[in-house]
Formats: sequence, structure tokens, C-alpha cells
Amino acid sequence: MLRINKNIEALKPSATLAINQSVQQLRADKKEIVHFGFGQSPFPIHESIVKELCKHANNNHYLPTTGLRELKEEISKFLKNNQGITAKSEYIYIGPGSKELLYQTIVILDSIFLIPKGSWVSYSPQIASRGGEFSILETEFENNFKLSSDVLEAYCKKSPKQQKALILNSPNNPTGAVYTGEELESLANVCREYDIIVLSDEIYSQVNFSATSSPSISQYYPEKTIVFGGLSKVFSAGGYRLGFMSLPTGLESLHNTYRSFFSETFSAVSSPIQYAAIEAFRMNNGIRTQISDCSVLLKGISQYIFSKLSDVGIQCTQPQGAFYMMIGFTAFKSKFNTLGVFTSEQLSNYILEYSKVALLPASDFYFKEEDLFFRLAFVDFDGEEVLKASKESGVINECFIKEYCPNIYKGVKSIIELVS
Amino acid sequence: MLRINKNIEALKPSATLAINQSVQQLRADKKEIVHFGFGQSPFPIHESIVKELCKHANNNHYLPTTGLRELKEEISKFLKNNQGITAKSEYIYIGPGSKELLYQTIVILDSIFLIPKGSWVSYSPQIASRGGEFSILETEFENNFKLSSDVLEAYCKKSPKQQKALILNSPNNPTGAVYTGEELESLANVCREYDIIVLSDEIYSQVNFSATSSPSISQYYPEKTIVFGGLSKVFSAGGYRLGFMSLPTGLESLHNTYRSFFSETFSAVSSPIQYAAIEAFRMNNGIRTQISDCSVLLKGISQYIFSKLSDVGIQCTQPQGAFYMMIGFTAFKSKFNTLGVFTSEQLSNYILEYSKVALLPASDFYFKEEDLFFRLAFVDFDGEEVLKASKESGVINECFIKEYCPNIYKGVKSIIELVS
Repeated sequence: MLRINKNIEALKPSATLAINQSVQQLRADKKEIVHFGFGQSPFPIHESIVKELCKHANNNHYLPTTGLRELKEEISKFLKNNQGITAKSEYIYIGPGSKELLYQTIVILDSIFLIPKGSWVSYSPQIASRGGEFSILETEFENNFKLSSDVLEAYCKKSPKQQKALILNSPNNPTGAVYTGEELESLANVCREYDIIVLSDEIYSQVNFSATSSPSISQYYPEKTIVFGGLSKVFSAGGYRLGFMSLPTGLESLHNTYRSFFSETFSAVSSPIQYAAIEAFRMNNGIRTQISDCSVLLKGISQYIFSKLSDVGIQCTQPQGAFYMMIGFTAFKSKFNTLGVFTSEQLSNYILEYSKVALLPASDFYFKEEDLFFRLAFVDFDGEEVLKASKESGVINECFIKEYCPNIYKGVKSIIELVS
Repeated sequence: MLRINKNIEALKPSATLAINQSVQQLRADKKEIVHFGFGQSPFPIHESIVKELCKHANNNHYLPTTGLRELKEEISKFLKNNQGITAKSEYIYIGPGSKELLYQTIVILDSIFLIPKGSWVSYSPQIASRGGEFSILETEFENNFKLSSDVLEAYCKKSPKQQKALILNSPNNPTGAVYTGEELESLANVCREYDIIVLSDEIYSQVNFSATSSPSISQYYPEKTIVFGGLSKVFSAGGYRLGFMSLPTGLESLHNTYRSFFSETFSAVSSPIQYAAIEAFRMNNGIRTQISDCSVLLKGISQYIFSKLSDVGIQCTQPQGAFYMMIGFTAFKSKFNTLGVFTSEQLSNYILEYSKVALLPASDFYFKEEDLFFRLAFVDFDGEEVLKASKESGVINECFIKEYCPNIYKGVKSIIELVS
């Protein structure tokens, strides 16, 4: 009998990656599927970044464990200029994706992790993989499933004096919500009072529909906020696999621990990729314009979906950033129950089968099984083509979406038909 | 008080990466140091691989979690044709370095790990980082510190009925030894009898001084041997960070566990790097010739060092592959003791200070502290230039080494002076 680590054995493949692979398979079998399940940036990577990768393609040397000095300096400037965050370059760390850096942080910190209901799928399996503990903090649809400082404080008051780490993600996957400065300040006050470490996942920071970046809790709680970011979402380079984290002053003592853990696992991030990343974080005008054009386009698409689905009584969070919104079928619950559909997982299978639309069930995002909510990722279109067309047309209306984002149009139509 | 994972807190930076960073610092301070401490391939990466990286530099898509299908198929063929190993492509896994794959394997397997004395530095910290257990198996200088089946069997007979995993590395870091087919077969028989899982680290397989590849224990024990390899050593692309592992038939049940653990950590390896790797494992004639030229050169250099140091009474393992040999100062022990030098770590500091030569102490390789052995990595030269010169000159003798590998020449001279 093979004896294996029970914590790892119990993991399932990440829900987002798993649905992506199923959809790929269905499509390979010639099934027409609208893919609202996967949050990969649909846009091309900017040519200036590609050019730098080629320029350094013959670089076969191991780079320093925590990352290339020039890259860390560039990220420090980037955080200062684009996120209002003060981060010393020597406490910035480069990893093969921010997911890996989050994983290592979760393994390193002996904490109970606090996860607001409506958070990214991978946090809890990462915690479970090291046999850790987490608590889900309640959030409400009316507040776009954002965590309130009252809920956080109430939890802290009654919880044991264990070290706590709050995982906060804004712009948010799965809701598209962006926390305001005031909301973050008020959360920061509670964090300071209870000495909570914050893991601030800001991977979507510049994918913001009304500003060039999103407020960070690090501005209000710089001493204990670890900021995470990377190339995947803002720079449309998920496939490159490069993320960063910035350790705050209050956690600088962890430096050697991270460095050693990196050196015994991934060693260092791919050298050519690190050189290419310098160009990305330098944010030349071309890159800056592309990020802003993409945000305008995503805003238009999200508003279209929001208005169409709201009109027929489907609940929608108000997306203000990232690639997502959550939609809810609470008004249609009894109708679905009579069809034998009681959980969001059952309903997502039903929708995939009958409406040919892939959605991720809210149960993957820390909701109760019977909450009929779903994450809708609105990036199933050809970003390069749509970006060009949107710059020419200037308006993102139904005609535009029908012509250039046919899957978005079809998916919305199918969901509306489902409830009619 | 910050509470952190004690297992990770206790890690030190990997000895090889740490010494590399110290030497870089000393050299930046204009100190002339011979660097026998770091095992990075000194050769350039073949241009056909670089070309493929450029060709796919704009690929920003996430690839499947366990790796690109075409790459896995190519590695399966590579293993068949170049290592005599039968591996199904669906059970080949791509990771950001074979070190990361070893780490994940060690976390997944609930085993006691068996490490022959004279093994790679990172195995034990990886085991310690997950709170695991390991035993060191005794080896002898007379047998180039290779594990004998008698020692393995004796251990198994008296040890509890716990699941065991043997970590075997051939060609070996730090000794340069290559296990023969007979030795592996005899180890395989013991492994089968005691149902031992084998982690066969074959990262140096084609860096072999008398054959185009090295025997694998997988040929004799295919059912439970996990084979590890990658781009770093054979293809001189350590900086690219791509490794693979191949799961044997007897462990195919671990497929979902690996896939899930990957998907919650590094997600997938960098896309452009995976496409470039296809070209590497395809082993075109140019690549094949370069690997063989490099091996000829490394053999010549290792023989020079071996003969010079043996002549003055320094013990040397017989390098038959990889970039290393172990050298021992047993004959000079009492002389060093009178200088207040009792351990290999103290002696390595002494040699760095007085002889300006960086060597890694044997205590990093599971030797007793007072065993005055060291790993000598003989790759401190400009691979591109030396490769060209060696093809023109045809012989690797003292004159050649003095002219083209001045650090090797100087380092050997300094070590000889040390014991004179």
C-alpha cells in the first residue's frame, strides 16, 4: 500500500484550471461552448516585452535566488508610481507566479488564515495542503461581497489569541469588486488592533475600470501587509509565469526564511523571463496605453452583461476591475429545485449541458453549496481583434459585442433563455 | 512575536547557491578567487534552442498543468533513445526545475528517505522542510562513495517496516561517479525485495565521460523508479528553469495528486521555455555533438586535476561524469589539526582565505564534520572559448589548461601548495 501525504492527496485540481481543461476537451470534440469559466487575459503581450525576451533568450545563467536586482528595483519603482506603495527593492521577491509565492507564504506562516466569502479558489487548497486552518468571513451581495471591518472585528473579538493572516484580493476574483480607500482604511484599523498579517493579492491592480490602479491596504497598513502581483493579468502574460511579492517592514525578519525556501524549491525564476519582466514593469507609454485600452474595453463588456442579466432578475455584482463578476439565480431557486437542481455545482453542470455555457459555481469560492451564485469571467473573445475594433468604433454597445465578442453575446443570450 | 513554521525557519540557503553568492561578492570586491564551489554548466546554450525560445516569445497562454503534450512526447522519445528508459508521455511531468519536482515528490511521499553519504546538498533540507525523516547510508572512498547493495540490504533488514524511498544520483554530484549497470541491478534487487521507491536523479545523464548516456536504475527496476531530469546540466540551460520527472507504472496512481499540487503551486512552466525545450530534447545533431564535445573536454580537465592532486597524496574520486569530484586531505589531517582546523567546514574557510579557492565541505554532503573531504566543481572556465580551442588543439594537457582554463590551473596549483 502506497503511503502518501493525506493533505496533498485530498487536493483536487484547481477548479479554474480543471474547467479550462474540460472546455478545451469539449471544444476539441467540436462542441460549441461559451467559456465564462477561465480568467486568462485575452489580450496580446506587448511587443516591447516580447522583444526583451528574445534579446535575453541565450541567458542560461542561474539568477540570484530572490530575483534579479534590476528587476526588483524596477518593481519597487512600479509599486511607488502605479500603486502608491513604498517597497524596498531588497524585500521584493520574484517567483514563478504569484500563486507559488502565496503558497510559500502560507507554508511559512503559522497562522489561521481568514478568507472573505467570495475569494479566489486556490487559497484554501494551499492552506489545506500544509495541514493549516482557515475561517471564512461572511460577506453580502448588497456590498458586492466585500469584507466589512465590522465582520472582521466581530470575528477577532471572539476568536482565540492565535496569529491571524487575512487574505484580501482587490480588484477581486470572483466578484470584480474593488475596495475603496475608506473601506481599506477601516479594515486596516482592525488589522492593526489585532496584529493581523495581511496577504494583499493585487494581481489585478491596474485592471481597474475607473482609475489607473486600485487602492491598496498597504497604504493604510504598511507595516504588516505583504503585497502580491505579477505579469499574468495586468501585462497579459500568464504563460510567462512570473510573480512578485513585497515584504513589509514588520516582516523583514522573514527574509532568510524565504530565500532558503526558494533555494530549496524553484531556485530562481527563468532568466530570460526576468529580463523581459524589467521591460514590463518599466511601463513604457505603449504598455500604459494598452493597459488602459483593455480596461475601457472590459468595462464596456462588463456593463453590457450587467445590464442584460440584471434586467431579467439575475443578481450581478458591479464589476469595477479584473475579468469577473458574480451572478446569482436566487429569484429562480424554486424553479431549479423542481428540476432536481439544488446546488451551484449541480446548476453549473446543468448550464454547461443545456446552455453550453461554462461558469464556475460559487461553492468553489467559499459560498454555501445551495447558494446559486456563479463566477462569470467575461474574457472569452479575441483580445487583439476586439481591441483594434473598439479603438476604431469608440463605443461598446450590443451591436459591437454581437459582432466582435460573439461568445459573450451568445453566452448572455443563453443565460437569459435559461431563466425565461 | 511572529509565529512561523519551524521546519522552514530552520533551513539555511542551499550551500551551493550560498557559496556562489559569496564568491560573486568577493569577485565584485576585486578579489581573485578560483571558484570550485558552483556547478553551473560553463557552456553556451545551443543556438537552435535559443531560436525556438524567440519564436515562441509572444506565447502568453497558460499551458496544461503537467506540461505541454508535445514536450512530454519528445521527452518520452528522448528517454527511450538516450537513456534506455520506457516512459509513457502522459506520466511525464514538467516543472520549474527538477529541484522543484523533487521537492513536491518528497512532500507527497510519506516515507523515510535513504540518502547515500556523498549526495546532493538539497535532498535533506527538502525533507526537513516538510518535517520528514531521512537516514544516511554509509559509502566508502575506495568505491568512489557509491552505495553498495550490501549496505542497502543491511539497512532494510534492521529497519522498521516503514515505506522507504531511496534517492540515487548518477552521474553523481558531488563525486562524479557513475553507477554501472551491474551495480544498479544489484541495488534494484534489494529495492524490489523491500518495496523501496527510487527517486533517480539523472540530471547529468548525458554528461558522461565514456558513453553517450549513463545507466539508469529504471532499466532494472522500472516499476517503482521515478526518473528526474531537465535542461540545466546536459543542455547548459540552468537559467531556463525547466525539469521533468517520469512516473513509473507502479506509481501512476499519484497522477492526480501531482497534477493538483502543481495546479495549486507553480500552475505550469513558462510557455516560451517549454516550446524551447522541445527543440532541446529533440537532440538534433548540433546539440548531440556539442554535448559530446563538452564531455570530452570535462573528461580531460578532470583527469588533469585527478593526476596532479593524486600525485601529492590528496585523495580523489574518479570522475566519470557530471562536473565534480571529491578530494580528501586525510593524509594531512594532523598537520591541519595543529593549525586549529578540525572540520571540513573550517578547512574550506581556511582554503578560501589563504589559497583563494572556493570548495564545498563534505559536511554539506552528509559526511561527518571531521572528514576532511570537499567537492571540487571543475567548471570555472569560459566554456565557449575553451570548447573552440579544444576542438582546434585536440589534446587537453597541462599547457592547454594553463592557457585556456587559467582558474583550473591556478586552483590546482594553490591546493598543491597548501599541502606542500
